[in-house]
Amino acid sequence: MKCLVTGGAGFIGSTMIDALIAGGSTVTCFDNFSSGQERFLQDSGRRPQLRIVRGDLLSAESLREAMRDCDIVFHFAANADVRHGAEHPGKDLEQNTIATFNVLDAMLKNNVRKIVFSSTGSIYGESPVIPTPEDAPFPVQTSLYGASKLACEGLISAFCEAFGMTAWIFRFVSILGERYSHGHVFDFCRQLFADPGSLSVLGDGTQRKSYLYVGDCISAILCALQAATEKVNIFNLGTDEFVSLKDSIATITGELGMNPRVEYGGGARGWIGDNPFIYLACARIRALGWAPALSIRQGIVRTVRYIRENRWLLDAR
Amino acid sequence: MKCLVTGGAGFIGSTMIDALIAGGSTVTCFDNFSSGQERFLQDSGRRPQLRIVRGDLLSAESLREAMRDCDIVFHFAANADVRHGAEHPGKDLEQNTIATFNVLDAMLKNNVRKIVFSSTGSIYGESPVIPTPEDAPFPVQTSLYGASKLACEGLISAFCEAFGMTAWIFRFVSILGERYSHGHVFDFCRQLFADPGSLSVLGDGTQRKSYLYVGDCISAILCALQAATEKVNIFNLGTDEFVSLKDSIATITGELGMNPRVEYGGGARGWIGDNPFIYLACARIRALGWAPALSIRQGIVRTVRYIRENRWLLDAR
Repeated sequence: MKCLVTGGAGFIGSTMIDALIAGGSTVTCFDNFSSGQERFLQDSGRRPQLRIVRGDLLSAESLREAMRDCDIVFHFAANADVRHGAEHPGKDLEQNTIATFNVLDAMLKNNVRKIVFSSTGSIYGESPVIPTPEDAPFPVQTSLYGASKLACEGLISAFCEAFGMTAWIFRFVSILGERYSHGHVFDFCRQLFADPGSLSVLGDGTQRKSYLYVGDCISAILCALQAATEKVNIFNLGTDEFVSLKDSIATITGELGMNPRVEYGGGARGWIGDNPFIYLACARIRALGWAPALSIRQGIVRTVRYIRENRWLLDAR
Repeated sequence: MKCLVTGGAGFIGSTMIDALIAGGSTVTCFDNFSSGQERFLQDSGRRPQLRIVRGDLLSAESLREAMRDCDIVFHFAANADVRHGAEHPGKDLEQNTIATFNVLDAMLKNNVRKIVFSSTGSIYGESPVIPTPEDAPFPVQTSLYGASKLACEGLISAFCEAFGMTAWIFRFVSILGERYSHGHVFDFCRQLFADPGSLSVLGDGTQRKSYLYVGDCISAILCALQAATEKVNIFNLGTDEFVSLKDSIATITGELGMNPRVEYGGGARGWIGDNPFIYLACARIRALGWAPALSIRQGIVRTVRYIRENRWLLDAR
């Protein structure tokens, strides 16, 4: 399989590339390295099956060129900064919605007909149904990030209908594991390495979230690619559990052997557009035979160990 | 009330302007006149309460300037060409999604906090639930037009959450009535005026659609603006009925006194992304006390009479 992976130097993208190359595919990694890391591609980068293109999705021509002769696009590049959306309202539009349009347009021009897309559980907003299934009541968006991913899903589905493409859309909970470089575990480790005695936390700590280990995320995507054959295949990806932020803090500080004083910012939400309870129903992907190998707790522990052993990442951003 | 109406020279926008001015508001009409008509503004244009700005929503600066001192924005400008979406896939993105972002951004910069938005029943795709309520199962998009309006709704809702705005979002069925200048009644009249003996129709004629008279559309919007006080207020707007395309043709030809040979293109769908059955549940807006004054049939008859008396419109596009 000839694959193009956008955001291929990122956390999930680079892990996907490793899996694709291990499975015998050839891969073009397309990344602008705004947050991607060359070191994430060290393993696969030595193989002739990987080509790395430094390019931006907002530059349609380089994208079109890079996509030539591809069979399938894994579109993982995104502005994944949910929390600061309100500080730069145009960023999600550009880097997610318009970038995704450019990917689809380049696919059209290269006659590429398959796309895998990393969406998010954030598009459910504050769903009245928890755990939230894929066909939950039509959601009202609460974050610019979620709104931009919703727009991407809509574009992808419409392109499938109009141009005979096939899509596999995955609505992720937060992903954890090796190469993780963004999110609350990362923020907390950074704080605790600087000052093991104190931890400052957004919200009141009662926020409940679900997480998934990156290896499980990749295996779920590959499973669905094999088994799901609709025109537009939409799957929630998560574990059958959730943890409170306080539980998560206990796991992190326990693994680090620290006992900081925790200061809570207060309020049910950590930031504008934060959903206090994210828990996705994953029966649809489970019905294909996939199951996560790691619990949330195990995923958090692996993440903490990875960050501890890769402190360069804390300075890389 | 100081209002800005985007697409104010269009079918629905100009009718809205007439109603706003009749109600004592002052209005800025913002339109690029790509499909808007100066003649639609003849009545209100003589009044000092109306200011007409010829500008494009993709030019952020002129928009920001035009919006100064406004209390509320009625954002009706759009590429409303559902049918030919696949011929220019970037048009809906630009003229709907990006244009709406620009409207929201200009509101932010002008401290305008209220927006009325014309969305569409097309965002439900091919809903499994008919009549389709506002909280129908999370839809899969089937048209680039629907996808772009979904993206707009998402942006508007996220802006409301992030910046304390209030929105009234209306998911229209097809709107009919005076100044109607786009859609199947228009196309059929054009054909029949050119050749009363023959009518060429997309699809097999069994498509079932719902319609709403423009006067009823405006009264529903004004009703919801008074009575709905959520952060994001979403309403389907339609009648409690639907008609088949064949019924609609019978009404049109009957009103024109013509008996053409009708040729059907075949297929359940008139075009890529066409939904064969659009019928919205409107209990939510009805609960506010609003009801349509005209039936679909009455709306079609008024539309045909209007087009017959305003043939200049057939040449205006």
